[in-house]
Amino acid sequence: MAAWTLPQPMKRALALAEKASALGEVPVGAVVTRGGEVIAEAHNAPRETHDPTAHAEILAIRRAARALGEERLTDCDLWVTLEPCAMCAGAIVHARIGKLYYAASDPKGGAVEHGARIFEPPQCLHRPEVYAGIGEARAAELLREFFRERR
Amino acid sequence: MAAWTLPQPMKRALALAEKASALGEVPVGAVVTRGGEVIAEAHNAPRETHDPTAHAEILAIRRAARALGEERLTDCDLWVTLEPCAMCAGAIVHARIGKLYYAASDPKGGAVEHGARIFEPPQCLHRPEVYAGIGEARAAELLREFFRERR
Repeated sequence: MAAWTLPQPMKRALALAEKASALGEVPVGAVVTRGGEVIAEAHNAPRETHDPTAHAEILAIRRAARALGEERLTDCDLWVTLEPCAMCAGAIVHARIGKLYYAASDPKGGAVEHGARIFEPPQCLHRPEVYAGIGEARAAELLREFFRERR
Repeated sequence: MAAWTLPQPMKRALALAEKASALGEVPVGAVVTRGGEVIAEAHNAPRETHDPTAHAEILAIRRAARALGEERLTDCDLWVTLEPCAMCAGAIVHARIGKLYYAASDPKGGAVEHGARIFEPPQCLHRPEVYAGIGEARAAELLREFFRERR
């Protein structure tokens, strides 16, 4: 998929991933939207902040909830450059995210289509609609470059 | 198990759960220790803070990482009054918690012995030692009282 055909929030998430990479953080970016409007955005920042929970998705969700003054992000969508891990998928459930768009799959750390498959157990309280693969080539390239430089 | 036989960190986690209840938050408390010393503590606070990620475990882990200035809580243990959900179990993995002690099981929202069983997939990056049931009677009583009053 050519970059110019990407939805604007995923373009922004990819730009945030690039920013993370430049700061020495694993390149992942996330954007929360509602009705096409950007509510919050973030990039991965666990190293900078000494916070193991500071994944792009957690930070974007926390910022969106603060911006809206609501515990639940009803009618909000999350755009992220990598398949969410178990922690982030769990946060997506608690935040009641409507649609989850992610770019690259993550067979090692992902927990949507891999591993713990957070949205699958029958007792899962909320299931977002999931759209995978939008922007995956660029998202995966950023991750490959990042880890190649550090090997 | 009589209350006086409980380990001190679990007694403290139960006191924090009581505090949460008094504030109208689901009564869950968590304490992070290292070598017997309390590093951080927290109670559930998503309503007060408008933050869907503000579970007791997430807040305690974030505070401990900030206190230690380290992204990973190596050699730290987590004491929590309820079986962690998927989000919190994922955070426990990222934080590299050594031992997880929890009081009550949570068949609906728990993701350690129920649901997504976060520590079980072979690709799980880190597995804490898990000890369940310490203080479960009091922890479960606090939750029952909280939800009974709100029905």
